[in-house]
Amino acid sequence: MADGAVAAVDVRGGGPGTRETDALAPGNLVDRVHAICLTGGSAYGLAAADGVMAELESRRLGVPVGPDPAHVVPVVPAAVIFDLGRGGVFANRPTPEFGRRALRAASPTFARGAVGAGTGARAGGLQGGLGTASVRVEVGDTSAIVGALAVVNASGAPVDVTTGAPWVPHPVVRRPSADDRRTLAATIEAIRAAAQPLNTTIGVVATDAALTRPEVGRLAQSAHDGLARALRPSHGLTDGDTIFGLSTGSVELPHDHRGLVRSATSRVVHLNALCAAAADAFAVACVDAIVTARTIGDAPAYADLCPTALRL
Amino acid sequence: MADGAVAAVDVRGGGPGTRETDALAPGNLVDRVHAICLTGGSAYGLAAADGVMAELESRRLGVPVGPDPAHVVPVVPAAVIFDLGRGGVFANRPTPEFGRRALRAASPTFARGAVGAGTGARAGGLQGGLGTASVRVEVGDTSAIVGALAVVNASGAPVDVTTGAPWVPHPVVRRPSADDRRTLAATIEAIRAAAQPLNTTIGVVATDAALTRPEVGRLAQSAHDGLARALRPSHGLTDGDTIFGLSTGSVELPHDHRGLVRSATSRVVHLNALCAAAADAFAVACVDAIVTARTIGDAPAYADLCPTALRL
Repeated sequence: MADGAVAAVDVRGGGPGTRETDALAPGNLVDRVHAICLTGGSAYGLAAADGVMAELESRRLGVPVGPDPAHVVPVVPAAVIFDLGRGGVFANRPTPEFGRRALRAASPTFARGAVGAGTGARAGGLQGGLGTASVRVEVGDTSAIVGALAVVNASGAPVDVTTGAPWVPHPVVRRPSADDRRTLAATIEAIRAAAQPLNTTIGVVATDAALTRPEVGRLAQSAHDGLARALRPSHGLTDGDTIFGLSTGSVELPHDHRGLVRSATSRVVHLNALCAAAADAFAVACVDAIVTARTIGDAPAYADLCPTALRL
Repeated sequence: MADGAVAAVDVRGGGPGTRETDALAPGNLVDRVHAICLTGGSAYGLAAADGVMAELESRRLGVPVGPDPAHVVPVVPAAVIFDLGRGGVFANRPTPEFGRRALRAASPTFARGAVGAGTGARAGGLQGGLGTASVRVEVGDTSAIVGALAVVNASGAPVDVTTGAPWVPHPVVRRPSADDRRTLAATIEAIRAAAQPLNTTIGVVATDAALTRPEVGRLAQSAHDGLARALRPSHGLTDGDTIFGLSTGSVELPHDHRGLVRSATSRVVHLNALCAAAADAFAVACVDAIVTARTIGDAPAYADLCPTALRL
């Protein structure tokens, strides 16, 4: 994203922790962002974005604000999850150095599960995590990708205890054995009473379709529908559920705006398809976070409680 | 609602048709509404609210605006679905007289299915309709009701064609026979190509818990999560999905706002429970609209395609 990506955000939770999100309102000055920072540490963790900004500044990536090419201001919206004290020490939280290292380590392939911002995450008392998924969408005679990344830290249930499976199908998940279902149900019952009430699921939904900021906003909005399907309930007052939308802008959509009637050339038809894909991808990314996580602390992971659910 | 109900609205669709919704923004003058009008006829149908207002004025119900008790302005937010031409005549649409009659006929018991605003509704090509559901929530040593009313007119699918059942369980619905599943799948395939691309699901979620306007707004917001579970996809650009929240205000919630930690006396804990109930009730209300509708025009009803799905 050397020139940045068109970005928008949709905050639906009642207790969000965010930074640089007002800059993303339609009509505001800055149209593109240079990175998105997803982190733990509650509002303290917003400091991680300082390090991302410093690293971007050193690479001269940002909005030019003067004649010297070194004079840039990177735009780095950020959102946090609540995980304070979950490793045992309340004062442990991401610092600017975490953000700097994360940007240096950024790569198209990355670890999933109880890693990064997902390390201290919980989901209905189970170990939460970081997950991803993508959906390809036909756009005229070409196609676009909608990819989602979710850091799942929810008070809501990620699995249906009656089936023992996540609410939304995932490629590696099948119905677990009756024994595993019983273990899962008993464990969830036991941890429910003691579960941490502060949560927040955050994420990004990104496409290579060339979209305007308002269109990217609808993509983020639709991703919350996927969140609502995967985590029940969601968007509570003690969640800060926040999803960013991004367009990296290489696949052109038709520009026929008359298309309220069904037409293969209508921009509206393609936008609807991209939004539906955003919901689907985000839902599967939430499930991906849950099923790839392994137990690392005091919260049991789904994969360890229900090993027969995973088709490996 | 002689003194009106505390009201809020959440518009999540891309093509809404609404009236008096800006008045509901937090901080604006009017805190209570005297009726909510849900109607067909696209933006033309907003005229139905004229008749609701006239009837309320004749009963002297509204915001007093002068010394004469007859000088009132009723606040009647409204939302519409797109159903123009679905009875065969594009010019047929609700008039003020429809609104006046609807208010005169208002009663705690009412018809469901392909009636009222749901008459011309469609859902993934099937006959849409009007449905309702409610959930009781424990609030301290008493309880509150969250009721939902949905007018389902969606491009998204209301049923999972692999099971033949709605996405969300409903008390009268069971898994249909294999024959019915095949009929449903074949019919949906056939009508999909010709399906009307303009839609919109609208509704109300109401509680007897005494809530502030911002809290009622969160109730409406959560109801959209139920919509997202019941209709897939939802909230598209060609939907105008709009849900009103109402509080009729007789059941008091605790006022302990310190309650970020789990506590039976915390207002936040009870608000979260009400919001979760709003999502659940709205989801079931959407299903209720689909399963209670019978075929009245050119769109087949679920109940007629899948009679074995209904436990009657």
